[in-house]
Amino acid sequence: MSNGAQALIRTLVDAGITTCFTNPGTSEMHFVAALDSVPEMRAVLALFEGVATGAADGYARMADKPAATLLHLGCGLGNGLANLHNARKGRVPMLNIVGDHATYHTQFDAQLQSDIETVARNVSPWVRTSKSTQDLCKDAAEAIGVCQGPPGQVATLILPADVSWGEGGVPAAPPKITPPKPADDATVAAIAQALQGGGKKAILLGGRALREPALMAVARIAAKTGAKLFAEVFPTRIERGAGLPPVERIAYLAELASVQLSGLDHLILVDAKPPVSFFAYPGKKSYLVPEGCQLHTLAAFTQDVIGSLDKLAKAVNAGQTKPVLQAPRRPGRPRGKFTADKVCKAIGQLMPDNAILVDEAQTSGIMLPMYTAGAPRHDVITLTGGAIGQGLPNAVGAAIACPDRKVIALAGDGSAMYTIQALWTQAREKLDVINIIFNNRSYAILNVELRRVGASGAGDKAKAQLDLRTPPIDFVQLAQGMGVAAKRATTTDEFLAAFEHALRTPGPHLIEAIVPPA
Amino acid sequence: MSNGAQALIRTLVDAGITTCFTNPGTSEMHFVAALDSVPEMRAVLALFEGVATGAADGYARMADKPAATLLHLGCGLGNGLANLHNARKGRVPMLNIVGDHATYHTQFDAQLQSDIETVARNVSPWVRTSKSTQDLCKDAAEAIGVCQGPPGQVATLILPADVSWGEGGVPAAPPKITPPKPADDATVAAIAQALQGGGKKAILLGGRALREPALMAVARIAAKTGAKLFAEVFPTRIERGAGLPPVERIAYLAELASVQLSGLDHLILVDAKPPVSFFAYPGKKSYLVPEGCQLHTLAAFTQDVIGSLDKLAKAVNAGQTKPVLQAPRRPGRPRGKFTADKVCKAIGQLMPDNAILVDEAQTSGIMLPMYTAGAPRHDVITLTGGAIGQGLPNAVGAAIACPDRKVIALAGDGSAMYTIQALWTQAREKLDVINIIFNNRSYAILNVELRRVGASGAGDKAKAQLDLRTPPIDFVQLAQGMGVAAKRATTTDEFLAAFEHALRTPGPHLIEAIVPPA
Repeated sequence: MSNGAQALIRTLVDAGITTCFTNPGTSEMHFVAALDSVPEMRAVLALFEGVATGAADGYARMADKPAATLLHLGCGLGNGLANLHNARKGRVPMLNIVGDHATYHTQFDAQLQSDIETVARNVSPWVRTSKSTQDLCKDAAEAIGVCQGPPGQVATLILPADVSWGEGGVPAAPPKITPPKPADDATVAAIAQALQGGGKKAILLGGRALREPALMAVARIAAKTGAKLFAEVFPTRIERGAGLPPVERIAYLAELASVQLSGLDHLILVDAKPPVSFFAYPGKKSYLVPEGCQLHTLAAFTQDVIGSLDKLAKAVNAGQTKPVLQAPRRPGRPRGKFTADKVCKAIGQLMPDNAILVDEAQTSGIMLPMYTAGAPRHDVITLTGGAIGQGLPNAVGAAIACPDRKVIALAGDGSAMYTIQALWTQAREKLDVINIIFNNRSYAILNVELRRVGASGAGDKAKAQLDLRTPPIDFVQLAQGMGVAAKRATTTDEFLAAFEHALRTPGPHLIEAIVPPA
Repeated sequence: MSNGAQALIRTLVDAGITTCFTNPGTSEMHFVAALDSVPEMRAVLALFEGVATGAADGYARMADKPAATLLHLGCGLGNGLANLHNARKGRVPMLNIVGDHATYHTQFDAQLQSDIETVARNVSPWVRTSKSTQDLCKDAAEAIGVCQGPPGQVATLILPADVSWGEGGVPAAPPKITPPKPADDATVAAIAQALQGGGKKAILLGGRALREPALMAVARIAAKTGAKLFAEVFPTRIERGAGLPPVERIAYLAELASVQLSGLDHLILVDAKPPVSFFAYPGKKSYLVPEGCQLHTLAAFTQDVIGSLDKLAKAVNAGQTKPVLQAPRRPGRPRGKFTADKVCKAIGQLMPDNAILVDEAQTSGIMLPMYTAGAPRHDVITLTGGAIGQGLPNAVGAAIACPDRKVIALAGDGSAMYTIQALWTQAREKLDVINIIFNNRSYAILNVELRRVGASGAGDKAKAQLDLRTPPIDFVQLAQGMGVAAKRATTTDEFLAAFEHALRTPGPHLIEAIVPPA
């Protein structure tokens, strides 16, 4: 005989969800108590919900399956919202379990009562408040089916306390997965014709199309047809490095993206949206597809990417074409004046095989893709939804998904402070993460943006809003205060020494790189 | 000629909103640039939105007028949601200004695009996306009118970037305030009759009824009629100490609250809701008003509290009655084994005149009301919505509202970690705040709750979810890392020394009290 919570955890585990990132409160206590009844479920505690949701996001990107979160009512969900937004925009599967008051208690509008569903809808196409212990696991199975996609989605199951503690829970079978369909013949034929015709052609890859099997297929197509390969500006996960096809990312700055895309006659989308400017700027274009360029969608978010690319490869007769692959190539050991650029160069020089780079370095990471292009193969996961505070939590999840790989998380000082509590979970779980904080003591990207939006009249008060010099944040103390070994680097040599030490010493590390704004 | 942002800030200032707690991004850059055009507006930067919203909450509680927040799209609002929830539940006025993409940019579903309004509705009865620069300030004036209440509310004005940067902004006049009405004569007469009749009577005070003028009026009524005075469990702001009428707070534990309320024949509500259990527990009551007790509402949230109490005082002929006032009384200097109780006792012994206590101490603060009852008069502000992470941000706002008063913020270790970034703003603004962190290295309240909910089967995995020992959090390093002077206390004498030092040294301090779980 199980209660709701026990049956729910069993249902999750049976469907392959074996990790839950948690920040529970009283309404989740029966779920917490039930953890011991299902040994296969790992529960990872976070001190803040944004860490839990960001970790679940990073986990799913690397494990290729969802994690669950356990959150405390509407406020806990709210605290997790920014990283849920990043997961939504990255089409990352995730199952939120949000505890709620007992069904009969909501009428009293107690202190923590709020409309959870309305918050959840911001990030979660599937939201349901489970109404009875008997239905709970059926609801959960439906949520799991939805969240796995394609496209991957955030699903939110709201779990009233009495539904959780009620007896009579019955685990549900894992949802049946309907395999997605590839592009139809007519679409493939039309795209093949465009690629084989004249003009300038490019293929824009997003989501699942940036993983090795898709990359190998599309690189053959590109080699055969002369199409250029682009990756979306903020990939959910891109596999790259020596031996894999190189793909150029669309630039964050619309001005540069327009140069990348200029003169295109055909743009083929594979699991990607047409490129648009990240923000709007007075007098500048938002939609970046050049006029006269014909858009084609080979695989939409709901479709089979590999199947579609295989059909296209066949149609353009690229099955035996040799793809262009990245040659091994590392930058030299950096020396001289210490800058963010030198950090990126050092990473390119020293990063080990099969590393996971979590890139939330903002302005400081501009040169990272160049320096790491020919490094040993690795994955990069990025700020898919633009909600900063993703990097350190993503690193938690990535390290739990891939315990045998080194995770290198890069974050700006401003970004790192949103979810700095992630360091504690890294220490608690002894995760193999090297956190590199670019401390330029400013919201450097906003200094760029202040100019780009053409805001005039900015004086001392405005500039103070972008200035993090007073007081200076000491990330070494913050890290040590949460149990993470840390070093400060103010010179290139200090950085190299700290990074080399961290690379050979398992467990979490933080290196504070004191750099000038880029 | 003003742009939208400049006219908006002028409108805010003209309506008395002269403080804005900010965490801006690109879409808010014109608002930021406009700060220099209106010298009366003070902008206070936070590193995390939950700090900004919690500070605005604390500010309004102490300044008796709203502050604004400046937040970055739906994700910034999400990060601020928990403390907006606390403000909502405390009926605290606040104006959120949430930047959004330019109106024409939303169609492209860029990375940061999300449905902001749906998030805002969780906390904000008034939500509007301003559609044009011409209408912006009218919208703002309407929002200000709504948020000021009564009841105080959170209002959310969504500000698209092009509405902000557009030319032709026209400041709007401050909204007209309609004074609230007192209880009608029949209600007053019925309540007077109940109070003058037999049986056991109590008056439950909430919101504005816990401020000095209301307290003095109601204390006369109580003295005249024999009614007992209660305060709601988590007051928004209560004025107390020597010379003010003492009021007993309803207990957090429903078991104890039931004892407090048992046998009541009449319960009179003044700006308060009927008491309910904070959470639901299997087999226990949620609604705490005893059976057979008659409920009366003297002043609802929309009504005039003082006017209603004055009418009632007249009706029961209490105008000249001498109220019971708290005598000056401090506990002795604590000595012996160091516990949370000793910290509370030390505060009672040493707190200066006119202090502001921000109480998020959870289990560690249980004895605080007793030890401070006869201390010099002071204000206490508490966790109105139950969303932890309120204390340190509230202290920021309280200190900015009342620069001449000492703010003492008490937080549990678990609570403090949700919005620990508040320390940086305290240092940046050189605020006179003493942060006392009760570090018992656990979510101690959840250990209590795990037992109270009757969850069985909790083993090592469950218990680990409530355990913050590994790694131990070093709050001294966290504080120093954000520029706040800090000391650790492991004995009562160390605590006394640190507290006395902090009391005589202006600026922010943190004292980490290493205590056993209560």
